[in-house]
Amino acid sequence: MMFNNENVRVSPKATIGKNVRIGDDTVIFENVVIEDNVTITHNCVIGEPLNAFYSDPDYENPVTVIGANSLIRSHAIIYAGNRLGEYVTTGHRINLRENNLIGHHSVIGSCVDIQGNAIIGNYCRLYSSVAIAPLTSIGNYVCIYAFVVLTNDPYPPSSDLKGCSISDYTQIAAQSTILSGVHIGSNCLVGAGSVVNHNVPDYSLVKGNPAKFVMDIRKFVMLGKGRLYPWMYRFSRGMPWKDIGYENWMNNQDTSVKNGIDKEK
Amino acid sequence: MMFNNENVRVSPKATIGKNVRIGDDTVIFENVVIEDNVTITHNCVIGEPLNAFYSDPDYENPVTVIGANSLIRSHAIIYAGNRLGEYVTTGHRINLRENNLIGHHSVIGSCVDIQGNAIIGNYCRLYSSVAIAPLTSIGNYVCIYAFVVLTNDPYPPSSDLKGCSISDYTQIAAQSTILSGVHIGSNCLVGAGSVVNHNVPDYSLVKGNPAKFVMDIRKFVMLGKGRLYPWMYRFSRGMPWKDIGYENWMNNQDTSVKNGIDKEK
Amino acid sequence: MMFNNENVRVSPKATIGKNVRIGDDTVIFENVVIEDNVTITHNCVIGEPLNAFYSDPDYENPVTVIGANSLIRSHAIIYAGNRLGEYVTTGHRINLRENNLIGHHSVIGSCVDIQGNAIIGNYCRLYSSVAIAPLTSIGNYVCIYAFVVLTNDPYPPSSDLKGCSISDYTQIAAQSTILSGVHIGSNCLVGAGSVVNHNVPDYSLVKGNPAKFVMDIRKFVMLGKGRLYPWMYRFSRGMPWKDIGYENWMNNQDTSVKNGIDKEK
Repeated sequence: MMFNNENVRVSPKATIGKNVRIGDDTVIFENVVIEDNVTITHNCVIGEPLNAFYSDPDYENPVTVIGANSLIRSHAIIYAGNRLGEYVTTGHRINLRENNLIGHHSVIGSCVDIQGNAIIGNYCRLYSSVAIAPLTSIGNYVCIYAFVVLTNDPYPPSSDLKGCSISDYTQIAAQSTILSGVHIGSNCLVGAGSVVNHNVPDYSLVKGNPAKFVMDIRKFVMLGKGRLYPWMYRFSRGMPWKDIGYENWMNNQDTSVKNGIDKEK
Repeated sequence: MMFNNENVRVSPKATIGKNVRIGDDTVIFENVVIEDNVTITHNCVIGEPLNAFYSDPDYENPVTVIGANSLIRSHAIIYAGNRLGEYVTTGHRINLRENNLIGHHSVIGSCVDIQGNAIIGNYCRLYSSVAIAPLTSIGNYVCIYAFVVLTNDPYPPSSDLKGCSISDYTQIAAQSTILSGVHIGSNCLVGAGSVVNHNVPDYSLVKGNPAKFVMDIRKFVMLGKGRLYPWMYRFSRGMPWKDIGYENWMNNQDTSVKNGIDKEK
Repeated sequence: MMFNNENVRVSPKATIGKNVRIGDDTVIFENVVIEDNVTITHNCVIGEPLNAFYSDPDYENPVTVIGANSLIRSHAIIYAGNRLGEYVTTGHRINLRENNLIGHHSVIGSCVDIQGNAIIGNYCRLYSSVAIAPLTSIGNYVCIYAFVVLTNDPYPPSSDLKGCSISDYTQIAAQSTILSGVHIGSNCLVGAGSVVNHNVPDYSLVKGNPAKFVMDIRKFVMLGKGRLYPWMYRFSRGMPWKDIGYENWMNNQDTSVKNGIDKEK
């Protein structure tokens, strides 16, 4: 019922890898590259043309890449110029404006809206309806929960846009808002419903409107659970250390990664 | 223009009742049961297969039921395993992941995202873009307004998920966030934009970030309006007591319902 | 790939102007008027019928107007009874319930949900996922950022609905909630994540939950930037004064406009 090749339209200028499945009613535009073993389900639009398409007769669609082994669920709109890494998984109805870079093994939840020119690292998870403004930069192993909004205008309306940056391992709980230009360090936890209007140092727990520093997250203890952060020692689902544990995995990383981590300490 | 039978695909393994209308471009997957007098408008997907579909050659789609006299508006994605009661009405673009139970006469607003394994009672109303995490449990006659997010992870990221529970007659105003595992009693009112991080007793008015107890809702008086809560004595649109009033209706209920209500007092 | 006339359905009772492009898989219902030079991209529904359509055999679809030179991006649902001015641009997946009036040159972002019977002025910008309740009234040159919710029920659930009103030039930053019946004056700035539960005078900067008055916006100075508000003297992209500056433009306006502005001073 899903891969019947009904009403599928693939541009002759698209490049389709081996073992690719494309669902009914899906459209693949010019200059899209679908790598091997990708599944794109029904009703998707891959390589949606940019604004110039509507007015420029010489318009050429930028290259779009869907990395190998990725799964794009239904009703996605992925503009031309996006580059998704391998093993990316999405929910339904995602909206990716042009020129985002999304790392491998990241998960993009239903209705996520990435408004273009954003960088998202590897093994990130964006839950439902996360909204990411242009110029945002997100590291690796970052989770952003439902309905978080990352903004980029410091005094609206302006053209002086500054995206947020969020470092590795940080967790941003549901419904939070991050103001333009704010840097959130690594290994932070931002409580649900926070409004973050200033930079947050590594290993901070912050929450509230406006968000205030509560404690070093390494000192956070939950009754009967003990220390819970950094979370990588207790949670590994979908992470590269899932079979060997974070410590062993980290010991096997090359020096640059370890230095990166050391630097954060 | 809507029921022309254009581009409609219905699995031969679906069961379609009497007097059912199915809109153009709608897909009905295997093992979906559409009861009598249901209207499903255009561009819907009913019985969307679960993840295993993509990898398991022996995959069998779980049963999905759309109860009699329901109206599903366009662009819905309803996964396999959902069971909707009778007279359910939805807005557009709802997203129901697998295995939710939704009671009869409930209204699911546009873009509502119910992420699976949730229970929603009878005569509930979820307004636009409400997001409900797995394991949520919602009673009867509950209204949840636009952009409310119910979460389920007490220390993200974890696998120790605990859904929220919300009891009968409670109202949760727009943009509020309910933290994992929180129980909100019956007949409560949660003010708009609240972040609720602790249990809330029956008949409470709470608001703020974090939400604080304001007063017993039965003592809330609005100038020129008098007492407004419990609301069932002044509001009946779409409710089972709409023709006879709440008091008469309640007197006609059987003992177990009345005991339920008594218990809440 | 977008304007191939594949699976396009246009009612014979629709009126289509000159030089109109209609994307694949788009449906245009009865009594829709598409003015000249409009582009409607793929997968749109224009003139979606009202509730009575499902039950009334004599149902007549109200007139819907898409003003000249407008661009409606994909997956829009625009109900019958909407009237959009000229040069309106939309993002993807907008949802316009019936009987909204939307002024010329306004921009409606992706996933915006306008729930019917709302008035939106000229040169407004609504960013992604803004939700606007029925009976809302918005002036001209207003920007409302991502995930702002405007409500209309003063004591939910009730039938005593009162929309918000927002005057010219006002900016409402992301994730804010405006409570029922609140009037926000002209030239205001509402900080991100605010919950506004009372009227706001012209030229106010307010923020927080609940929102509190911070200062007269004309006194707001940013280090190295000087005075930033009223913003019209420093920002003109997409505005009618973009070639001549706000002051010159205003001097060319007729007396009624100037009186309106004077009144606000």
